[in-house]
Amino acid sequence: MPSVFIEELDAESYATMVAREGSTIIIPTGATEQHGPHMPLGVDAMLSRAIAGIVAEKIGALVAPVFSYGYKSQPRSGGGNHRVGTTSLGAAALTGMVDDVVTSLIAQGFTNVVVLNGHFENYQFIYEGLDNAVARARATGSESRAVLLSYWDFVDEATLEKVFPDGFLGWDIEHGGVLETSLMLLLHPQKVDMTRVVDHPPAKLTPYDIFPEDPARTPPTGCLSSAAGASAEKGQLLLDAVTAAVADSLQGELLLGSIQVEVE
Amino acid sequence: MPSVFIEELDAESYATMVAREGSTIIIPTGATEQHGPHMPLGVDAMLSRAIAGIVAEKIGALVAPVFSYGYKSQPRSGGGNHRVGTTSLGAAALTGMVDDVVTSLIAQGFTNVVVLNGHFENYQFIYEGLDNAVARARATGSESRAVLLSYWDFVDEATLEKVFPDGFLGWDIEHGGVLETSLMLLLHPQKVDMTRVVDHPPAKLTPYDIFPEDPARTPPTGCLSSAAGASAEKGQLLLDAVTAAVADSLQGELLLGSIQVEVE
Amino acid sequence: MPSVFIEELDAESYATMVAREGSTIIIPTGATEQHGPHMPLGVDAMLSRAIAGIVAEKIGALVAPVFSYGYKSQPRSGGGNHRVGTTSLGAAALTGMVDDVVTSLIAQGFTNVVVLNGHFENYQFIYEGLDNAVARARATGSESRAVLLSYWDFVDEATLEKVFPDGFLGWDIEHGGVLETSLMLLLHPQKVDMTRVVDHPPAKLTPYDIFPEDPARTPPTGCLSSAAGASAEKGQLLLDAVTAAVADSLQGELLLGSIQVEVE
Amino acid sequence: MPSVFIEELDAESYATMVAREGSTIIIPTGATEQHGPHMPLGVDAMLSRAIAGIVAEKIGALVAPVFSYGYKSQPRSGGGNHRVGTTSLGAAALTGMVDDVVTSLIAQGFTNVVVLNGHFENYQFIYEGLDNAVARARATGSESRAVLLSYWDFVDEATLEKVFPDGFLGWDIEHGGVLETSLMLLLHPQKVDMTRVVDHPPAKLTPYDIFPEDPARTPPTGCLSSAAGASAEKGQLLLDAVTAAVADSLQGELLLGSIQVEVE
Amino acid sequence: MPSVFIEELDAESYATMVAREGSTIIIPTGATEQHGPHMPLGVDAMLSRAIAGIVAEKIGALVAPVFSYGYKSQPRSGGGNHRVGTTSLGAAALTGMVDDVVTSLIAQGFTNVVVLNGHFENYQFIYEGLDNAVARARATGSESRAVLLSYWDFVDEATLEKVFPDGFLGWDIEHGGVLETSLMLLLHPQKVDMTRVVDHPPAKLTPYDIFPEDPARTPPTGCLSSAAGASAEKGQLLLDAVTAAVADSLQGELLLGSIQVEVE
Amino acid sequence: MPSVFIEELDAESYATMVAREGSTIIIPTGATEQHGPHMPLGVDAMLSRAIAGIVAEKIGALVAPVFSYGYKSQPRSGGGNHRVGTTSLGAAALTGMVDDVVTSLIAQGFTNVVVLNGHFENYQFIYEGLDNAVARARATGSESRAVLLSYWDFVDEATLEKVFPDGFLGWDIEHGGVLETSLMLLLHPQKVDMTRVVDHPPAKLTPYDIFPEDPARTPPTGCLSSAAGASAEKGQLLLDAVTAAVADSLQGELLLGSIQVEVE
Repeated sequence: MPSVFIEELDAESYATMVAREGSTIIIPTGATEQHGPHMPLGVDAMLSRAIAGIVAEKIGALVAPVFSYGYKSQPRSGGGNHRVGTTSLGAAALTGMVDDVVTSLIAQGFTNVVVLNGHFENYQFIYEGLDNAVARARATGSESRAVLLSYWDFVDEATLEKVFPDGFLGWDIEHGGVLETSLMLLLHPQKVDMTRVVDHPPAKLTPYDIFPEDPARTPPTGCLSSAAGASAEKGQLLLDAVTAAVADSLQGELLLGSIQVEVE
Repeated sequence: MPSVFIEELDAESYATMVAREGSTIIIPTGATEQHGPHMPLGVDAMLSRAIAGIVAEKIGALVAPVFSYGYKSQPRSGGGNHRVGTTSLGAAALTGMVDDVVTSLIAQGFTNVVVLNGHFENYQFIYEGLDNAVARARATGSESRAVLLSYWDFVDEATLEKVFPDGFLGWDIEHGGVLETSLMLLLHPQKVDMTRVVDHPPAKLTPYDIFPEDPARTPPTGCLSSAAGASAEKGQLLLDAVTAAVADSLQGELLLGSIQVEVE
Repeated sequence: MPSVFIEELDAESYATMVAREGSTIIIPTGATEQHGPHMPLGVDAMLSRAIAGIVAEKIGALVAPVFSYGYKSQPRSGGGNHRVGTTSLGAAALTGMVDDVVTSLIAQGFTNVVVLNGHFENYQFIYEGLDNAVARARATGSESRAVLLSYWDFVDEATLEKVFPDGFLGWDIEHGGVLETSLMLLLHPQKVDMTRVVDHPPAKLTPYDIFPEDPARTPPTGCLSSAAGASAEKGQLLLDAVTAAVADSLQGELLLGSIQVEVE
Repeated sequence: MPSVFIEELDAESYATMVAREGSTIIIPTGATEQHGPHMPLGVDAMLSRAIAGIVAEKIGALVAPVFSYGYKSQPRSGGGNHRVGTTSLGAAALTGMVDDVVTSLIAQGFTNVVVLNGHFENYQFIYEGLDNAVARARATGSESRAVLLSYWDFVDEATLEKVFPDGFLGWDIEHGGVLETSLMLLLHPQKVDMTRVVDHPPAKLTPYDIFPEDPARTPPTGCLSSAAGASAEKGQLLLDAVTAAVADSLQGELLLGSIQVEVE
Repeated sequence: MPSVFIEELDAESYATMVAREGSTIIIPTGATEQHGPHMPLGVDAMLSRAIAGIVAEKIGALVAPVFSYGYKSQPRSGGGNHRVGTTSLGAAALTGMVDDVVTSLIAQGFTNVVVLNGHFENYQFIYEGLDNAVARARATGSESRAVLLSYWDFVDEATLEKVFPDGFLGWDIEHGGVLETSLMLLLHPQKVDMTRVVDHPPAKLTPYDIFPEDPARTPPTGCLSSAAGASAEKGQLLLDAVTAAVADSLQGELLLGSIQVEVE
Repeated sequence: MPSVFIEELDAESYATMVAREGSTIIIPTGATEQHGPHMPLGVDAMLSRAIAGIVAEKIGALVAPVFSYGYKSQPRSGGGNHRVGTTSLGAAALTGMVDDVVTSLIAQGFTNVVVLNGHFENYQFIYEGLDNAVARARATGSESRAVLLSYWDFVDEATLEKVFPDGFLGWDIEHGGVLETSLMLLLHPQKVDMTRVVDHPPAKLTPYDIFPEDPARTPPTGCLSSAAGASAEKGQLLLDAVTAAVADSLQGELLLGSIQVEVE
């Protein structure tokens, strides 16, 4: 297969692949959002697309064009929507896009549609679009299934301990921090400038949101924690852990059918 | 003040209160959702309304009628939308309700609007409605501010240790578990039947969602963890911790203005 | 049955009831709206919920959580949306809520869904949501039926003559008047303060609406007619007439199937 | 002025008229709906357009193109939406049309916008569109005002007694009856065939709606009362009463400003 | 058949026609838009309605009430939406109207629905509504088909040469020009005042749009080319060419079924 | 400047550029759509992004992430939405995306926003989103302007004659033809396989659309004309012509302000 990315495939080759039983497509979703002075605005889209590509190769799937724009960045997970560079969609547009694209992919014949999310704030709005699209398709006879995941939820405890030797403080403050920077150093090293990292302590965020947003809530860098500890090696650890776990889950889910809930 | 709940206030008394400088209204939001065999469908609405009432008394605020319906219950935080008894709104209706009600309350003259959420899945959709309503009001000259919070995010570590002596496993699996059941035993004891609690281990949930939902993913009870350890005493601990912390935060936020982010 | 109100039922008991052939749920709808100086903002929701409860007991139905917010109050039937205390939804949010909730209740298995309206301005927007929900459900095989009614339309002539001995002037000006006040004196006497009733003549309203609303169109009290003649006895007359007639209609409609139009 | 109907005016003449202080435009709204075997589908649009034209001449206003499609016909006021010939809009499309057209007319410079409604079921959805359009225009500095009315609400008691010598039974059952037929006999006599009138008693309608609609609820003719008593003479009485009263109201409203509510 | 225009048909006659196999209805769509100093605002609606009527007679179809309002006039095809007299719909309202009306006509039983467009800017928004309505109807078993066309696309080369002896410059600049004026001189001569035609050269338009619109982009007349060469004779040539070609296409399409693409 | 593509820029560098007077951003829009057996699905997005990049360098602008999904492919300009590989958005999602992204970019401070379209069917829906976003921004004080263009509209006659020596047949049938293939051979030669080009005559398309789409209308290749005559040299001619003309137009428009319409 010349490429897993469908934007690079001709329609005839693509049609052959879609027609396979069990054909699977992964839609990576990101955002256009500030990621501090040391990384570019496209981090979320770049990472979700790259991870989707590796997973697709592992499981024999295709990858749809990445969603380059995401839901409004929120102060507690992305610094806030008021920051210059952050260019967001509202709920209706994001949900509508997911619904339309998933509906189209199911209609073309995919057995499975996977959305691999790379922007924290997107999750619930993708959920709504996916739920509506699958429900509508099912009501008219489709047997297609869908899966929604955020890639960082697949990092295991052992990897966390290696990547965050001083203790892991939660995914919410990883915006522009060690996780994303390490993965970028591995996957897009020329797009990271570690000399511009500002080594400040993690943001102390309130357990609530205020409206309108208050620029003083998040550090001036736009990062919610320091990326000083990032490295390509950590990026490799994270990437291996995530892609293996996502591939395992999808293979289990999509081949073995319904998973039993374990109530030990 | 005869009542903090505005549905019980006459319009004249209400108008006097709204006209005060710094007038604040709290909108509690819940859901109509199965909560296992031992608790009623209205748990989320009952708890958020009761907590809002106590906080309102502490800070001199009013409470709007509770939102009795919430966003689709998701398997990883509420058991799933397919369960009988769970009666949900989609994204557009919930977001639209928040937008309309908040817009109306700001137009009537409230200085501050607080949404106190009691149903996990609601948060992002309330965020969207609140963000749109406040942005629109601000664009035409309003100085009103808004706050959005979920009450469980205000339980401190010390309380967690007392309530979950065997270790706290995360808010996501607290659906129908110790937190909600303890609060219900305190606030609405006649609506809890502890003899019907099924003492099963916590649900082992996947780190992703599938569509359509798989009923086998969550325990047959509909609860994601056991409520066997619940008690009114724990309910009191939780209620005191939450209402004190929420009241403190709101007083700090709404009186002192913009909070500085602490970057130690 | 411990309660007809589903927010107070556990999911297991509820599921048993829903599974019955001919299972019926009543959704009461109200508003948050000024009702003069002598009654609270929640009158419409309180009355529709209470009436739904009594009807449900008579016909063996359940009652869903009341819709506490309603469509914009209009000057000719509620005094107007500009009045402090009146907190309304626009058309899209109200219609969307009805559609989502009715769709969910039909999917859970109810044979019949009844919306019992308590706020004049809601009717057409509920109609739209109900019509869309039932049409969609029917298109995919559902046999469920729905009924929409406003409770005051079931007061018969004989009762009207007793309640309004000086002549009945129309439901439109009954906002905050004898009907609602009498029912509140019966059902929620502690929430009515008859000493605050202002005994003014009925509002003389224009047969058209103007935009923006003109506060001078309706009496300063917010009531469109005087509640001076209200009493709990009249409330009992009205309640008996309404609940008997609604129950009769629903029993006839839902058991006997299609009613023949009588063209004598 | 060559015509009050703007579809027949050239843009230059129109622009001159719009620029006048106090310039007023009337939007007639109707429906495409069965009106029995003796009248055509366009009755509502024809009548509202004709009445708007006469009123416009009396008060010096213009008339916009009629809205030929209206909200879903309901069994209790139009026979029902299931009848062949009845071709309706849902709430969103009708409300959106009103909003867009009114917004455009205000932006062009009209001081006053009047919607003259000729289809019972339209009223609330026009109200929503008009309310939103005027509120948005006002928020950005417009001083324009709007009026919404249904023409039959302007028939006085004396006229009613003459037109319905055996007693008036209410506007709701006038669908295809004496009012509309008499006006059509006067204004579009060649489009009425009185030999096809079926002289049946008024429909006995239930005080509630059912979903899906039941064709047996309304008489097979599609009329809710008999048009046998209709005549062009009655049409003249009705037309004179309506146009005089509407013109008077608009002149009072639009010239004299805010009307005082009369509390005698 | 007394009339092809359904607003003039009674419901019984109409129902008989709809029930025929192969029954076809044509929906003409226009706009309310300035057309220079020599023609009225209703040109687009008048022409599409008249052409639809002639085509309907040729092929045995009916004609639905014309859509009198259309999508925003754009500078490059209609002079621009900022011009006084131009009264437009946004995308959602126009698309929603088409969807609702087409859905209703298919549900009533028409085998074929044709939209005959008379306003350049409408096309894509009608396409969306028609595509959605037919897709939804098909998903629930309908066999109905639809056709969308703009009438000017059916003028053949030979006619073009006769009507534009000095060369045809494109349909986009025909707004208020020879095509529309000639057709109006033929069909509605009393609504054209040729003495007011300003004989200016065609507008030189940019190959892009700017926002906000720039009034200086289009000639002060509002016409994009001169109507000086218009005549009723040219109108007859155009009308004959268009109605013959549209009728031929529809007869071929609707009787013969799927047309083969010719790849010579 | 390291890159004109903002996904590759860090937020600090970006903020500096946005703050410049006259700052301009170009949003390229494409589609995911079959382009025959010889080109990949991403052609429209690849070309609009590449052209936007060159124009941006010429005029000192930035380029936002490309819109990878576009409006439904139509048979007469893209082969049709039913073809496998074609993955489209409906009108609401596309219009909403444009509105949200443009609103965000204006709020961040850009003086000018340009949408450079690369998918025929997108134009009107982008127009709607852009018009709404700019109108709303202007209503609250913004001075920003926007431009919308499709790149092929900037190919001059001289270039057309060189690229299509046998005569140019119109942009509508250029889907997968000489224009796109030549540009791809120049810009992404490794993604074109000229050995797979099928040399068939241009599709003979009807001047109307049918619903549902008929797969037999367009050639089996999915291309509407043959790409056999394509070459990188022609690609260079086209690219030079387009980028020079677009850059000239934008410089004239954005520096010189309002352009006078030339009426010679």
